[in-house]
Amino acid sequence: MRLAEMTTDEALAAVRTAPLVIVPVGAQEQHGGGMAMSTDTVRAVGVAERVAERLAGRAVVAPPVPYGVSPHHMAFAGTMTLSPATFMQVLRDLVASLHTHGWRRFLVVTGHGGNNPALSVLAQEYVGSDVTFAWTPVTSVVSDLITDVSAVHGHAGEAETAQMLYLAPELVQADRLEPGALTLDELTVPARLARDPRGPRLSVGFDEYHKRGVLGDPRRATAADGRLLVETAADRIAAFADELLSA
Amino acid sequence: MRLAEMTTDEALAAVRTAPLVIVPVGAQEQHGGGMAMSTDTVRAVGVAERVAERLAGRAVVAPPVPYGVSPHHMAFAGTMTLSPATFMQVLRDLVASLHTHGWRRFLVVTGHGGNNPALSVLAQEYVGSDVTFAWTPVTSVVSDLITDVSAVHGHAGEAETAQMLYLAPELVQADRLEPGALTLDELTVPARLARDPRGPRLSVGFDEYHKRGVLGDPRRATAADGRLLVETAADRIAAFADELLSA
Amino acid sequence: MRLAEMTTDEALAAVRTAPLVIVPVGAQEQHGGGMAMSTDTVRAVGVAERVAERLAGRAVVAPPVPYGVSPHHMAFAGTMTLSPATFMQVLRDLVASLHTHGWRRFLVVTGHGGNNPALSVLAQEYVGSDVTFAWTPVTSVVSDLITDVSAVHGHAGEAETAQMLYLAPELVQADRLEPGALTLDELTVPARLARDPRGPRLSVGFDEYHKRGVLGDPRRATAADGRLLVETAADRIAAFADELLSA
Amino acid sequence: MRLAEMTTDEALAAVRTAPLVIVPVGAQEQHGGGMAMSTDTVRAVGVAERVAERLAGRAVVAPPVPYGVSPHHMAFAGTMTLSPATFMQVLRDLVASLHTHGWRRFLVVTGHGGNNPALSVLAQEYVGSDVTFAWTPVTSVVSDLITDVSAVHGHAGEAETAQMLYLAPELVQADRLEPGALTLDELTVPARLARDPRGPRLSVGFDEYHKRGVLGDPRRATAADGRLLVETAADRIAAFADELLSA
Amino acid sequence: MRLAEMTTDEALAAVRTAPLVIVPVGAQEQHGGGMAMSTDTVRAVGVAERVAERLAGRAVVAPPVPYGVSPHHMAFAGTMTLSPATFMQVLRDLVASLHTHGWRRFLVVTGHGGNNPALSVLAQEYVGSDVTFAWTPVTSVVSDLITDVSAVHGHAGEAETAQMLYLAPELVQADRLEPGALTLDELTVPARLARDPRGPRLSVGFDEYHKRGVLGDPRRATAADGRLLVETAADRIAAFADELLSA
Amino acid sequence: MRLAEMTTDEALAAVRTAPLVIVPVGAQEQHGGGMAMSTDTVRAVGVAERVAERLAGRAVVAPPVPYGVSPHHMAFAGTMTLSPATFMQVLRDLVASLHTHGWRRFLVVTGHGGNNPALSVLAQEYVGSDVTFAWTPVTSVVSDLITDVSAVHGHAGEAETAQMLYLAPELVQADRLEPGALTLDELTVPARLARDPRGPRLSVGFDEYHKRGVLGDPRRATAADGRLLVETAADRIAAFADELLSA
Repeated sequence: MRLAEMTTDEALAAVRTAPLVIVPVGAQEQHGGGMAMSTDTVRAVGVAERVAERLAGRAVVAPPVPYGVSPHHMAFAGTMTLSPATFMQVLRDLVASLHTHGWRRFLVVTGHGGNNPALSVLAQEYVGSDVTFAWTPVTSVVSDLITDVSAVHGHAGEAETAQMLYLAPELVQADRLEPGALTLDELTVPARLARDPRGPRLSVGFDEYHKRGVLGDPRRATAADGRLLVETAADRIAAFADELLSA
Repeated sequence: MRLAEMTTDEALAAVRTAPLVIVPVGAQEQHGGGMAMSTDTVRAVGVAERVAERLAGRAVVAPPVPYGVSPHHMAFAGTMTLSPATFMQVLRDLVASLHTHGWRRFLVVTGHGGNNPALSVLAQEYVGSDVTFAWTPVTSVVSDLITDVSAVHGHAGEAETAQMLYLAPELVQADRLEPGALTLDELTVPARLARDPRGPRLSVGFDEYHKRGVLGDPRRATAADGRLLVETAADRIAAFADELLSA
Repeated sequence: MRLAEMTTDEALAAVRTAPLVIVPVGAQEQHGGGMAMSTDTVRAVGVAERVAERLAGRAVVAPPVPYGVSPHHMAFAGTMTLSPATFMQVLRDLVASLHTHGWRRFLVVTGHGGNNPALSVLAQEYVGSDVTFAWTPVTSVVSDLITDVSAVHGHAGEAETAQMLYLAPELVQADRLEPGALTLDELTVPARLARDPRGPRLSVGFDEYHKRGVLGDPRRATAADGRLLVETAADRIAAFADELLSA
Repeated sequence: MRLAEMTTDEALAAVRTAPLVIVPVGAQEQHGGGMAMSTDTVRAVGVAERVAERLAGRAVVAPPVPYGVSPHHMAFAGTMTLSPATFMQVLRDLVASLHTHGWRRFLVVTGHGGNNPALSVLAQEYVGSDVTFAWTPVTSVVSDLITDVSAVHGHAGEAETAQMLYLAPELVQADRLEPGALTLDELTVPARLARDPRGPRLSVGFDEYHKRGVLGDPRRATAADGRLLVETAADRIAAFADELLSA
Repeated sequence: MRLAEMTTDEALAAVRTAPLVIVPVGAQEQHGGGMAMSTDTVRAVGVAERVAERLAGRAVVAPPVPYGVSPHHMAFAGTMTLSPATFMQVLRDLVASLHTHGWRRFLVVTGHGGNNPALSVLAQEYVGSDVTFAWTPVTSVVSDLITDVSAVHGHAGEAETAQMLYLAPELVQADRLEPGALTLDELTVPARLARDPRGPRLSVGFDEYHKRGVLGDPRRATAADGRLLVETAADRIAAFADELLSA
Repeated sequence: MRLAEMTTDEALAAVRTAPLVIVPVGAQEQHGGGMAMSTDTVRAVGVAERVAERLAGRAVVAPPVPYGVSPHHMAFAGTMTLSPATFMQVLRDLVASLHTHGWRRFLVVTGHGGNNPALSVLAQEYVGSDVTFAWTPVTSVVSDLITDVSAVHGHAGEAETAQMLYLAPELVQADRLEPGALTLDELTVPARLARDPRGPRLSVGFDEYHKRGVLGDPRRATAADGRLLVETAADRIAAFADELLSA
């Protein structure tokens, strides 16, 4: 199901048998003192491939885009960011390439929330075309399962660490995990405003949230929680894809 | 408070006294058989000016951008759309102009949800700069007040029509208001999937929702409801701005 | 006749009955100590709507673009400028949108001379296409009526102020009107060279013309003169449009 | 004085002694049945070098840009056009290059009116920078000397042919010169509207003016007239440059 | 040494200890009937990591770019291509990101010759900046070791297959390897001209070389040859990098 | 055969009789103390026209592009450079223009090696289109004839000077010719690495090669050598073109 591992002959056959292309997109960005910077790519790939498995031959997985839109993490060494314009152009080129070969339906799975705005813009651009362009974050589809966490949680926190403990424990240095911002009270005014899901939107650098750029307490993460999140996300996204393919 | 009506001398003074620039952005797009296509611009201006009033001299209002990102309404005559790239470049230029004169804090009020993705991208671009770039839809900050509506509601539906009845009743032709899509069952599969707030994202043209491009039943709208939505939105956004200005 | 106030159904009908789209474009820029910065937008709208009235149903008026190309006024607070590239892209998008709905003939009325170069470039781009793209400044078509003015006159001077006294007297603070550059002798060498209509072209910032950025003596303006200029401009542009529509 | 023929050492000296850079820009476009397509380049170079001679060492001449903005001549074989955006970018790059070496004052001499809009836009872009960017057509500065010509005249007509008979008679095939459009009555409505110097602006392809794309009667041209036009244009532009250099 | 697997803290330390960033870039494109489409990415990563190992801590390896410039393979299903402009912008963004963190020296290792032109352009762009931007194909540095091959050889042929048998034998389906174009005589005129290393350059689609897009006979490849090529390439590139770092 | 000197009628005929367009592209850049900065343009034109002559009416020559991609010479006064993006866009526009008129086969002759990367990218872009886009440097096709030269040679050295002595001796100031870098030992490490034709690629400014930016000893050049190089290059390129035209 991985296009990267297929031959061109296998791809030619897949255009008909596997009409959905799943594109995992991640990020190369800081994830605190204990997790690899490829965390979001690993999670995107992990979920994308599980979705493809559930679709049992009706989807192929494109080579993952290991870079995303991460300007808000650039205060931390090693973070690499594409501009939103570059990121969008990469995806336009990938979609156009596979469109040439006959594919029309695309589902981007992003492990990184910073890619969401650019993906939203792309989705608008394909309205009215013959391309179906769906996309989904990994975590948002299972947000109801993220419970018993600190008031402030998210980037490099409980849920992301749990997923990594399940998917790629070798990329987690457990002894270096450390808590980040845990409560709204700790935050600066702009950071607190930026966390309000109902209020006006504000983007702040992650160094404004916490000096280590971590939201939540990754020490509380377990592989079991990670399994629940990853497998349920795959279930739900596959159900979506199944419905889309039947339309 | 309107930059359009100020002289340059008044603007020079306002740089110091009114450090926040509120930029209303709307759309020129279909709003069903009974509402003017400028509905989103009217609502953005209405809320933006009310926010400025509440800030009592600490904000100026820029001339409204009467065009937005509306590809999903292009099946309906009279809709005009900027590409996301153009829309973003307009806002970058406006921010840069006022930055030259000394302004650093910007709050975009959008009457049109189709502008949200582009505004999200812009917000990312300003992270790490000396510009504070906040933005907000009109409706999302008062979504808790939108009750007793049809299962499917939104564009040109109960809440938008109510706001127009309050803000600009002369732009509503009450006898031509007609219900659009009301229940999820009526929708095509892609349209239904696109309405799921938790699932993967999918953008569809509004002609896929309903032949008239309307979500909900605008006939149920009242000016009293509109007043509640508009004035409460202005209250809440002004509270946000007040907090931001004090940071 | 205003697209902003029409419903989509009305726009659909107008595609056939009103084949000409008039697009008013203005500027947000300094106009001396006594006039609003929206002066050029107000004048563009004022003339555009009068042209449409004279065409008696054969033209619609698009929502005005309230920002123009104003780098030469950026020394004065409150001026906002689009780059020429952005301004052109906005107009390309607007034309493309209405082209989708069936319109083919466009007439841009600009209240701001700084938009002329970009409009000239656009006009070239549409040569050979199925779009007729005409454009006109407000003032140039009535330049023969601007008499008895100072040797140096123009921006925020006698004629522009007269038009505002006629169109929007509430945006003129008569007691703050003050004379700007009046004679060629007062000008610096580059500014004087830039005023020579026959010689090589040179663009200078308006602060190089006069510390207040005004050319001429706005105190001499009268609403009666403004009426003559505005109504005659509308007559002449409408005559042009009439001929164009009959072609 | 030609940068193309100088060594780098000579250019280094010229930065101080010759502070003005004259850039000839032309076109590769049809000029009727009897003149070479490089006519506008030849004329630009001819005038540019004469201006430089009059400035006696205070100006250098850059290599001519032999391509211009000519979409309105694309109906005729052999015409080559840069888009306005490309043409502008070429000039930006050339100015930036010489700016690096210390030059600050530029005078573009264009032999082709189709380059005027793009040059006008560029002139705006340099306002407020440390670059002086002046530009001039060849013909407009001597329009008072073009007399006794047909009512419709201009492209490939009396004056251009005269200049070529003076500057490069080997590029004129006298026996193939033929009259083009001579009177307004012959023109289509759009073409006639486009010729009105006071009315709204309209650009039309030159095949709409005349099937041969010629305006005026080139058979009436004489080398003596050409000498008068070219040498007077050089005088006047040099006087402008002299004044500019003394500022 | 892999930035993808490092934490941000480890990256912060590496800025000082490992001043060279090696960026593997590949392609997703057809490699005949028996090899995976990720062949060029696999080879780029294989060599890049071996170079880093030889540099013993003085280099880090960025996440590989798994897409390249492959328009000449688009006749074959599954090939995905970035435009040259997109590919260059990705690399500019990656370099800029790491430049922010303090890195100044970059070495791109490309497994795909189609990336060479874009990399050459990028190298020009960095001349005169504080960035050292070197790049190398995998194969060209060991071209002297590719002997005893068919007259026409290259893409998906003996040498590439050998490298894959050594680096990732699981991505080679030996029983599906088949010979492609072997002699110049088989080629069409344009394809033959394109193969002449001394003559004018011509780019042709790989379907013009051979219906299967293969140059050479991959059946003759051995893992031992692959080892020689890969390890020697790593030796030589590491020697280059060593010298560069000592400069 | 020169499009610049043809009339449009002659061009119309040439579309059929002369299906190949030869486009000479050069540079405006330093060539040491004794040669004109237009050296690369002169050489490109000289070879291009000789190729056209040999093709005896089957090719036309476009007006030369006198500017190229020369960032690596910007340390030397008088050098002017287009960005690679601008240079490519110029060529795209020129090809598109002639494509409109019916030409499909293009051969760019570049006198400047700095244009090679951009030309390589362009060649990729035309793969799969109906345009044949070939290109060639002047010197590389006769590199076997450049013998008995210094170990380091090239830019402004023996071979280029010889060509100029043959083609345009008036642009060579023989008494000012001076040797540049002659041996690898003289070079800095990066410059030496950049000269290795087999190793990884590195671009350095020509001031890093030698303070005068010269590679080799131009004093040893003779017009006879130049004749051999130029005429043989023309022979070989014409043979290529002949084969291409017969395909």
